[in-house]
Amino acid sequence: MKDKIFEKSIDLFGENGFSETSIQHIVDALGVTKGTFYYYFTSKEQILMEIHLRFINDILAKQDAIIQDPNRNYQEKIYEIICMLMKNIEVQGKSAKIFFREMQNLSDGHLSQIFEKRDEFRIKFQELIELGMEKGEFRKDLDSHIAALGILGMVNWSYHWFDPDGPLSDTTVAKIYIDLVLNGIKAE
Amino acid sequence: MKDKIFEKSIDLFGENGFSETSIQHIVDALGVTKGTFYYYFTSKEQILMEIHLRFINDILAKQDAIIQDPNRNYQEKIYEIICMLMKNIEVQGKSAKIFFREMQNLSDGHLSQIFEKRDEFRIKFQELIELGMEKGEFRKDLDSHIAALGILGMVNWSYHWFDPDGPLSDTTVAKIYIDLVLNGIKAE
Repeated sequence: MKDKIFEKSIDLFGENGFSETSIQHIVDALGVTKGTFYYYFTSKEQILMEIHLRFINDILAKQDAIIQDPNRNYQEKIYEIICMLMKNIEVQGKSAKIFFREMQNLSDGHLSQIFEKRDEFRIKFQELIELGMEKGEFRKDLDSHIAALGILGMVNWSYHWFDPDGPLSDTTVAKIYIDLVLNGIKAE
Repeated sequence: MKDKIFEKSIDLFGENGFSETSIQHIVDALGVTKGTFYYYFTSKEQILMEIHLRFINDILAKQDAIIQDPNRNYQEKIYEIICMLMKNIEVQGKSAKIFFREMQNLSDGHLSQIFEKRDEFRIKFQELIELGMEKGEFRKDLDSHIAALGILGMVNWSYHWFDPDGPLSDTTVAKIYIDLVLNGIKAE
């Protein structure tokens, strides 16, 4: 039942928004009582935090696996991370939407926990850029901090427009992004 | 009074969110009655739409001015638009936050009006890339559609992290972005 409440909450938050969804809506949709809800969760916000935590922990684990892969150079690792993030919009559609859109509804304590994990993700990405600069794969004059924010921003923004059922696959978009990021748009 | 209600709504939507702000909150903060509110506006959503319209119309007009400037090449025009959007996060701080975060609270009819204008902005940006490709300023093998989405995404995402009171100015970030976009990160 705990999982059912969790999954139904993702559906309803994703479709109607967190603020517009009441505990009553969630239990009505499942045909259970509020008592059942409170047996598993203390509040709607607790579920929202759980959605955020699972989302960010999942992409942190996937990023770590890519970082540790000894068979890829830094360009390939950056590409793999972009691919993973694009795929995640598809796989975790509703959770991704909630993650990006409903963060302001977390309590301050929870929000700072999530910010810490987001920072961890970004800093690890930035470190890949810096290692690639040292290895001579990337330009030595980059601002690795802003480059990391810019590249991740480009990819994260895709959740606003990318349609997994549309004509472009996540891999196609990821390939165009990595070409942009590596080579820029300027003619030689 | 109409302007005061409008400005106070921007403050409250920006600080507490649209759904969390009631008409009662707005009139209480101004020390007026609900009757006064309904004399000028039919609903809270009407104010939200007005915020969205002013925001998007303003950046469309600024983009048009840059596009029509005969003294700049396409690289410079792209740079000027990135600069303008970054500055806008500072100048229109709360409106920008509301624009990016509260769109889902618009009615369907209003939402499609705003989407049309957002598309117009993006398509004009994409046309600049295509003109630059024809002129030989940009690579001829670009996917101008995804490049436009990617570059605008990078810039738009900045409203999540860019702090106008922080150590980096909007122009500094815009310069790093344009260097990334033009030249990429790969070592020669």
